[in-house]
Amino acid sequence: MNEYKKIEEHDLQSISEFIPRERLLWKDEINEEYSHDELSTEAFYPALVVKAQSTQEVSKLLSYANEHHICVTPRGAGTGLVGASVAVEHGIMLDLTLMNHFLELDEKNLTLTVEPGVLLMEIAAYVEERGFFYPPDPGEKSATIGGNISTNAGGMRAVKYGVTRDYVRGLEVVLADGTILNLGGKTVKNSSGYDLKDMVIGSEGTLAVVTKAILKLLPLPAKNVSLLVPFPTLAQAIGAVPLIVSSKAIPTAIEFMEREVIKDAEQYLGSKFPDNAADAYLLLKFDGNSLEEISSYYDNVAKICLEQGAYDLLIADTDERSNAIWKARGAFLEAIKGSTTAMDEVDVVVPRSCVNTFVEYIHALQNEMGVRIKCFGHAGDGNLHIYILKDDLDDEKWQKILDATMDKMYEKAHEMEGQVSGEHGIGYAKKKYLQKSLPQASIALMQRIKLAFDPNGILNPSKVCE
Amino acid sequence: MNEYKKIEEHDLQSISEFIPRERLLWKDEINEEYSHDELSTEAFYPALVVKAQSTQEVSKLLSYANEHHICVTPRGAGTGLVGASVAVEHGIMLDLTLMNHFLELDEKNLTLTVEPGVLLMEIAAYVEERGFFYPPDPGEKSATIGGNISTNAGGMRAVKYGVTRDYVRGLEVVLADGTILNLGGKTVKNSSGYDLKDMVIGSEGTLAVVTKAILKLLPLPAKNVSLLVPFPTLAQAIGAVPLIVSSKAIPTAIEFMEREVIKDAEQYLGSKFPDNAADAYLLLKFDGNSLEEISSYYDNVAKICLEQGAYDLLIADTDERSNAIWKARGAFLEAIKGSTTAMDEVDVVVPRSCVNTFVEYIHALQNEMGVRIKCFGHAGDGNLHIYILKDDLDDEKWQKILDATMDKMYEKAHEMEGQVSGEHGIGYAKKKYLQKSLPQASIALMQRIKLAFDPNGILNPSKVCE
Repeated sequence: MNEYKKIEEHDLQSISEFIPRERLLWKDEINEEYSHDELSTEAFYPALVVKAQSTQEVSKLLSYANEHHICVTPRGAGTGLVGASVAVEHGIMLDLTLMNHFLELDEKNLTLTVEPGVLLMEIAAYVEERGFFYPPDPGEKSATIGGNISTNAGGMRAVKYGVTRDYVRGLEVVLADGTILNLGGKTVKNSSGYDLKDMVIGSEGTLAVVTKAILKLLPLPAKNVSLLVPFPTLAQAIGAVPLIVSSKAIPTAIEFMEREVIKDAEQYLGSKFPDNAADAYLLLKFDGNSLEEISSYYDNVAKICLEQGAYDLLIADTDERSNAIWKARGAFLEAIKGSTTAMDEVDVVVPRSCVNTFVEYIHALQNEMGVRIKCFGHAGDGNLHIYILKDDLDDEKWQKILDATMDKMYEKAHEMEGQVSGEHGIGYAKKKYLQKSLPQASIALMQRIKLAFDPNGILNPSKVCE
Repeated sequence: MNEYKKIEEHDLQSISEFIPRERLLWKDEINEEYSHDELSTEAFYPALVVKAQSTQEVSKLLSYANEHHICVTPRGAGTGLVGASVAVEHGIMLDLTLMNHFLELDEKNLTLTVEPGVLLMEIAAYVEERGFFYPPDPGEKSATIGGNISTNAGGMRAVKYGVTRDYVRGLEVVLADGTILNLGGKTVKNSSGYDLKDMVIGSEGTLAVVTKAILKLLPLPAKNVSLLVPFPTLAQAIGAVPLIVSSKAIPTAIEFMEREVIKDAEQYLGSKFPDNAADAYLLLKFDGNSLEEISSYYDNVAKICLEQGAYDLLIADTDERSNAIWKARGAFLEAIKGSTTAMDEVDVVVPRSCVNTFVEYIHALQNEMGVRIKCFGHAGDGNLHIYILKDDLDDEKWQKILDATMDKMYEKAHEMEGQVSGEHGIGYAKKKYLQKSLPQASIALMQRIKLAFDPNGILNPSKVCE
């Protein structure tokens, strides 16, 4: 366990020499929001919040912190679910939300350069207005791009387009000692030494602070069509997925959902979903440059679904109809949250051929453990979002049931050669599951890499592999 | 500088206890082929060649070498161009070409699991026969997949599909101390700790030995069409590329070539190219599921090319016509090699908007330096292959001109925020250019990462950042 220096008045004084006092929040000036993320229950306050406005400020701050052995937790919009942006060791919280500028759209190289505090929904709006497309599409649109890079966020379109990692061409980062480095760049290929860029992506702020990102864009597909496919059972719905994937269709997204979650979303949004009569649904999206091209894909998929027992196919080929469905899908997390007193989540990813078995296992767990569990997720890429609900359980019983249920789920995912997290990361909350899931030699190697980047261990301590 | 233990008779004896003597080559048994790669001029012989057949053998060998401080150079087919698979510090050469089995085609998860010694052309044949597609397509089809992973090979289809890194879902690797680790797996997403898999990819055998790879496949596109587009000047040809890329076309490949190189290839292959009257050409490929879909893309590209001054458009929409063109493209390296006494290569990658300026710079360099320079390459992704030819220069003069010419090219690429290598890697030959291209802090960080993986420095020493 690392012992960090406590921040005192004179540190505040020193830091205010290179970052104006009005962008430093000290003790009582620190808002409650800074003590947790979107899901954490325990509150941890930093001693000081620093709202940086430039790479130079980040560099000076880290250099100071490194020299004085003060720990630093970088933070974007705080929308994480595993505590990665929570200052569990107190110290400094480095708020990057003011670094929220679009720096360059390079149409010849199809890149967009942004500061880390730009929001995902701002990027989507900015590029789509100009005929471009940034494919990663996590449900939480008010996350920052810096946060997305830190957890290697995935989202709905990973089936066809991949994840955040696949769209980061270059990074400007600040190392723990204040050194500013550019990793990668605008080039499409790179085989020039070790891949430091990809090591930083997904490292949840423990290896370096991202201060600039060069993102890869695609031309915006001209058209998209969504298909909502009701099935008699979830097993039939999910069973269709490997068949769809191994056909030539390549959907942009394949989501699965059950009636219960749809009803929660209807209640939360106060609007009706196009259909809620079936037990289970697949929601698919296809994109392309013409409706003819897209229909050549989904005709085949429709056939597969009907052969697997689908009741019907609801086609949403206008923006309005499509948006209504995806808005409901986007509200699932909040809707489930609103339906109970407290909850915790599991974000495992398993080979897509195992999704059915895993979902059946979860269903059986509800009865076995005596707890409500809801799930939905990315059937096309095997990444499930599972929520265990407290409802009216008392605290002690809840904690016991929760721990036992989580243990069982992670064990099951491990058995299937799955991973602890598909896109939410490890942060603070999932550390023990990562430890159990990986061999000790992997964890030890990660710890040595942490030391290679951050010898004094000041960056986002007690996270991921520590 | 690391001092390695020399291998003696008793080491041979010890190693033969876990790897049969008939798969060990000792001293005079070592073929000349093992002393160089496809381009290196100086010969370095290993003291012992070990032809491993299993992960267990690799593990035992590395464990022995690590304990006795003997260095080990992993090697596939030896088709590299920068000396990465050459035993410059002698010691053991670990030949992985006997580990050449297809282990599993998983159609539900669209993955192919192979041993590292399987050849690229064998993978292509295997998956295409079964209706699947492995997109990375480097020119050298007789390279092993292990070699491709070690250099993060790119190839022609990177414009649309990306590089080797994008198609490696999981690796089994052996660390320097013999520990066997699985990194990643069959899952599509993964945010579970640091990205060890991507750190090993492109590390040229210096961090771990790859003993198994889980590759991502796509459904095989049903159709493809190639376009050969003659232009009056290379500047016009390359000038069209950013316009094509920022249109909605998304070609699979965009290559540029000049008449001279085409003539070399015609001579080398003894067959005619469809056209050799123009000074410069773009060669484009499009793929999709129907000719209608593809033609909707290339109609637009044709318009752009003609507006930029193209003479004509030659459409190759049968396999036969298309293969003839791509066969010539694939022969460029050998054809140029056959046209001179000796040569060296530069594999820089620049932002694709800079390709034109860079090629003009090379043209001017020929006169300035008094040396023949030929180039062709991946216009669509900014990765150039440039060959400096010795012809009848005497050795001393050649070395002087070569060094000065290389220095200038790498400096120019650096100015444009390019990288030293797009796909061939750094190995032994490009180390000094990597050192000049990256800040000292990046190199130092890479060296600390090397230590984290390989504390005794036994794996492929004197390569990349050492």
